[in-house]
Amino acid sequence: MEQIFDTGLVDRAIAELRMSDLGNATIGQMSSLATMLTAQTGVPVVRMDQGVPSLEPSIVGRRAEQQALDTNVAAIYPPAEGIPVLKNESSRFVKAFLGLDIAPEGCIPVTGSVTGSFGSFVICNQCTEGKDRVLFVDPGFPIQKSQLGVLGYKWESFDIYNHRGEKLRAELERHLSRGDISTIIYSNPNNPAWICLTEDELQIIGELATRYDAIVLEDLAYFEMDFRRPLGHPFAPPYQATVARYTDNYILMLSASKIFSYAGQRIAIVAVSDALFNRRFPALERRYGSNGHFGNIMINAVLYMITSGTTHTTQYGMAAMMRAASDGELDFRDHTSEYARRAAGMKRAFLEAGFHIVYDRDPDGEIGDGFFFSVGYREFTSGELIRELMLYGISSVSLSTTGSLRQGVRACSSRMDEDQLGLLTRRLELFARNHR
Amino acid sequence: MEQIFDTGLVDRAIAELRMSDLGNATIGQMSSLATMLTAQTGVPVVRMDQGVPSLEPSIVGRRAEQQALDTNVAAIYPPAEGIPVLKNESSRFVKAFLGLDIAPEGCIPVTGSVTGSFGSFVICNQCTEGKDRVLFVDPGFPIQKSQLGVLGYKWESFDIYNHRGEKLRAELERHLSRGDISTIIYSNPNNPAWICLTEDELQIIGELATRYDAIVLEDLAYFEMDFRRPLGHPFAPPYQATVARYTDNYILMLSASKIFSYAGQRIAIVAVSDALFNRRFPALERRYGSNGHFGNIMINAVLYMITSGTTHTTQYGMAAMMRAASDGELDFRDHTSEYARRAAGMKRAFLEAGFHIVYDRDPDGEIGDGFFFSVGYREFTSGELIRELMLYGISSVSLSTTGSLRQGVRACSSRMDEDQLGLLTRRLELFARNHR
Repeated sequence: MEQIFDTGLVDRAIAELRMSDLGNATIGQMSSLATMLTAQTGVPVVRMDQGVPSLEPSIVGRRAEQQALDTNVAAIYPPAEGIPVLKNESSRFVKAFLGLDIAPEGCIPVTGSVTGSFGSFVICNQCTEGKDRVLFVDPGFPIQKSQLGVLGYKWESFDIYNHRGEKLRAELERHLSRGDISTIIYSNPNNPAWICLTEDELQIIGELATRYDAIVLEDLAYFEMDFRRPLGHPFAPPYQATVARYTDNYILMLSASKIFSYAGQRIAIVAVSDALFNRRFPALERRYGSNGHFGNIMINAVLYMITSGTTHTTQYGMAAMMRAASDGELDFRDHTSEYARRAAGMKRAFLEAGFHIVYDRDPDGEIGDGFFFSVGYREFTSGELIRELMLYGISSVSLSTTGSLRQGVRACSSRMDEDQLGLLTRRLELFARNHR
Repeated sequence: MEQIFDTGLVDRAIAELRMSDLGNATIGQMSSLATMLTAQTGVPVVRMDQGVPSLEPSIVGRRAEQQALDTNVAAIYPPAEGIPVLKNESSRFVKAFLGLDIAPEGCIPVTGSVTGSFGSFVICNQCTEGKDRVLFVDPGFPIQKSQLGVLGYKWESFDIYNHRGEKLRAELERHLSRGDISTIIYSNPNNPAWICLTEDELQIIGELATRYDAIVLEDLAYFEMDFRRPLGHPFAPPYQATVARYTDNYILMLSASKIFSYAGQRIAIVAVSDALFNRRFPALERRYGSNGHFGNIMINAVLYMITSGTTHTTQYGMAAMMRAASDGELDFRDHTSEYARRAAGMKRAFLEAGFHIVYDRDPDGEIGDGFFFSVGYREFTSGELIRELMLYGISSVSLSTTGSLRQGVRACSSRMDEDQLGLLTRRLELFARNHR
């Protein structure tokens, strides 16, 4: 039977990399497997695994960084709270694209959203005694659970698939009513399933976060990439959906990695609501002093202890990109819509080969096209499908690693240019012929 | 009595900033106090508080960053383990200036040594069950203790003042013999006291670290700045003193902040010994899998979860600076010797005003001049002296915040150019007249 890679070769590579349970293989392991197979055969693997931006990094950001490097700021410790111009532009960006008022003081640069969630987990889990568990609205980003493993914090999760719309309320309440949830986390649009929470669902999350005094950590890594809606016009509705309209208990994470194709520079903004920023927590005062002031402690006693600020010249780059976006001079949404075009082509190829979209619907209709989507095949488990696709030279990520209870894989559209899409299509056709 | 600031004014500012115990005031608080007094009076404060590099950031690093910004690496996630050219240059730099062989794989870029120590504390405290305390050879850098507060880890410390030379053995053994110390940490040259551990002392630390299986975290932030010795010739002895010659249980922290005046860009290298990097720990395997391999887990399961790599273009800057240093084309030691000249002038002014150097000797002679030194005055406590110096417009840091049992303050020489030194000298003369 014609395949791209010989079954024995793939299984030997899997054994050599000690990937005993393919259903739980990490993105890094899948990447290593793809690299090993190509090294042994010279045959390229179609890489749908890692979510690496494939567009040019924003020229606006790079030019601003280069100019900052002509000054002496590279010598000077960045302020713990961020440089003023970046704080101001972040606040303005949040107003322009989310329609929210968040004071500059609550907009804090971090070394990528990974540092943002790490630091947020720490302070949110420490601010109220007895609230020491994180709740994941899954499927989600495996790294955030790994961060809790590093810290030794507890977490729980549920797969949202069967709890969309008004049904979300009961499921959330089941977790929150015990009173020990400090933090609710999800990404929207969703990594890996690309589902988008509706305003109704966000309202439920917000109301319950307020009632049970949990802090919502909203990961907006794929900001404005719900391409079904006419977003992207600064200071004009409609705006990116956000829980911030329904509770004061929130921290938003705005990463530069995908929206400005700036993943290499490690920068994001965490935006803390004014109410939370200025709230005082006795447990924080006992631990850190400073009158228990959430914002000051987050900046000076938590984030400062992790990285001592964010790369100084990169902050100037981020400020310039945000300013250009708010001024209507940098249409980041138009740039990233390339991912939607690529996803549409990939989905077509998968559906024609007999695959199905696993998370296929939002309460208000079919999901859109964007950076990720999820596919399954017949009764294959996630682990079986991962291996089967690799026999056809296609590398993906198991949905089981994302907290999903469904069987299937995550596909990333970012690297799928015309050539890769052609290769993917031909390989899926071969897959379909062999599975007839 | 003539002073620079009125006593009532200073005490009101202290009250307003809620600095109830001046002996425990942080660097940030002292900086705020100085800023407030200048804002209220227009009179500048002589700033000996923060250790901010005042030299030009390395042009070699900045040019390399600018060139990297012309490529597309800003879009691409940096490899978790660091870019190959930086790993190779780090290994070569360690050979050139420390005379050590550390494989490139063990040389890992981090977002400054602050992230390096944070991540190292995590893995060192998790790698052996029952070893869950950090031992500080004090005086030391207060931020490292604050990091343990964030993580909820235990620590203990001793002031080395009365335990120099062979006496160090008994004191170390007193702490290590209980068997629960995971990590021994110190900086050399020392922040705040500028004492330098001798080869004999480092040998004692190394031998005991091996015997009691503790990992030494050696902070080399002031690398090669023991200006008493003819260091700084690549690939030729004498080399920077290091514990690495006396144990395999070590992690070195090499920050770019001071040696290349690159504090703004947040980059350092943690260099893990080959033996430790490749050692397998059952407790790490239970927690993270990966066969418990120290190096792989440190990179992929710990550091990656904190920042997901280090700013991509800054890694190119660091690689270029290290290469130029190893090639003998960037004499970073000659640049930083400016700090020694400044410290010499400051010490002269303090001694003439009746002050004394608190940590004045190493076992083999008087301490040298460099980035910091410690001064005391008669029977003043640290807190009293902090306040008294501020009445004369001089801002410093209390030794009590550094784990020192001695009374006095830390003085930083970095900002003391000719003008500032003149101001400091005149104010100390006034201080002396008023205390006659």
